[in-house]
Amino acid sequence: MDDIDIEEVIGWAREGGAIARRSFRNVVGQRKADRTWVTEADVAIEQALVARLTERYPDHGIIGEEQTRRGLDHEFLWALDPLDGTAVFLAGLPTWGVSLGLLRRGEPYLGVIYLPLLDDCYWSLPGGSAFLNGQPIHVAPPHEWDGDDWIATPSNIHRRYDIDFVGKTRSIGATVGSFCYVARGSAVGGLANHFAIWDVAAGIAILQASGGVALGLSGAQLDTRGLLDGRAHDEPVLIGAPAHVQALRAVVRPRERA
Amino acid sequence: MDDIDIEEVIGWAREGGAIARRSFRNVVGQRKADRTWVTEADVAIEQALVARLTERYPDHGIIGEEQTRRGLDHEFLWALDPLDGTAVFLAGLPTWGVSLGLLRRGEPYLGVIYLPLLDDCYWSLPGGSAFLNGQPIHVAPPHEWDGDDWIATPSNIHRRYDIDFVGKTRSIGATVGSFCYVARGSAVGGLANHFAIWDVAAGIAILQASGGVALGLSGAQLDTRGLLDGRAHDEPVLIGAPAHVQALRAVVRPRERA
Repeated sequence: MDDIDIEEVIGWAREGGAIARRSFRNVVGQRKADRTWVTEADVAIEQALVARLTERYPDHGIIGEEQTRRGLDHEFLWALDPLDGTAVFLAGLPTWGVSLGLLRRGEPYLGVIYLPLLDDCYWSLPGGSAFLNGQPIHVAPPHEWDGDDWIATPSNIHRRYDIDFVGKTRSIGATVGSFCYVARGSAVGGLANHFAIWDVAAGIAILQASGGVALGLSGAQLDTRGLLDGRAHDEPVLIGAPAHVQALRAVVRPRERA
Repeated sequence: MDDIDIEEVIGWAREGGAIARRSFRNVVGQRKADRTWVTEADVAIEQALVARLTERYPDHGIIGEEQTRRGLDHEFLWALDPLDGTAVFLAGLPTWGVSLGLLRRGEPYLGVIYLPLLDDCYWSLPGGSAFLNGQPIHVAPPHEWDGDDWIATPSNIHRRYDIDFVGKTRSIGATVGSFCYVARGSAVGGLANHFAIWDVAAGIAILQASGGVALGLSGAQLDTRGLLDGRAHDEPVLIGAPAHVQALRAVVRPRERA
């Protein structure tokens, strides 16, 4: 049961993306208890993905942003964000996506992220290759930064961090987007904060398969096993090639506890 | 000669967008003398737009980012950015666009901005209406900001500004994008710096037609007539509804001369 048909999973992510795209131009958001946003698309996509996974992988657990919790202690656990970046989706911005990650014993195993408006699909295979639309991708190799380099940042950097970075910062609005643009080597690195396992399960799998790492600002390895109950990670995390992440640790300083 | 067929201009912007979209996935950038980027798409789109304009409006002047300078002293002057956001285009991000602004005696008269990957077209008519894909748009009405509000910011805010804003900052990567998302009321405001007339001619026309204004941090009205020689504007500018711009003046502080 550990043979995953990645093409089939990619097809499910595309199905989810099609649902989201249909409501993109006339969407209404509602607040969840944690004050984040949810739309009918988020819920419909999670239901569709859960139905597909349950039928195809009945022995696997599933945890989803929109309430799904089943088999959290199983060897294989899918972590779904049906629509990561709901706030930018509501704002009419394009960089939101469908995220399907598979954990094995709590560790990222493979991931699929689909960005519908770009029609870009990123995925990774167990044991180490990552792809964008079928082409292999790699994180940016070590180099000295200049003004053209950019890092993907959260939308609260103006309040939370002092960043002494010679290049550009871009908040493109979704955690999945940050992971994808770092994994493909477009951004030299990224900063992510306040995320749950469904936001990062696919992203970390793709990042690792493209040669990247995720480290807390303290230098600690990100431990996904501590997030399997759905809680938010409380330390900001830097992502990218090991050399870039180490260099970023020296230039990103939190102003207060995030 | 002051009757402009806006549908025809929209068609030209879409033609330009189609050229850009074709090279989006396999593009190579080159540096210009000012160290900004140019691609073959930038040049090809400018040539196509200049050919259309010259044939249809032979008495109008044209100034374009990629070198076009003709009839700068004519009553009507087109200001073109064939591909605003070349750096994000090269980075594989989606928020770049084609910008076609028309000035009359140096003042914004009408504008068309097309964002090809979103297939979103924004335009304004002389004297005051603005549209997104045919639907009227308006800047965000005055209200007290909360954590869901966002402002569109340049990618150097981490180095150049202290921003005491309760909401989010998003650098989506192109000046035209900032103007569009402010004009439609998605962002409550925006900050733009280091722009030339071709970056903002269409954007200001659309912004004003949607109820917005552009003021320097000092409070001075942005004077487009001083930019007709193609030089960069040296004061950062805030955009949005008048009430939001005034409120932003109180919370955006430059750290150094921009």
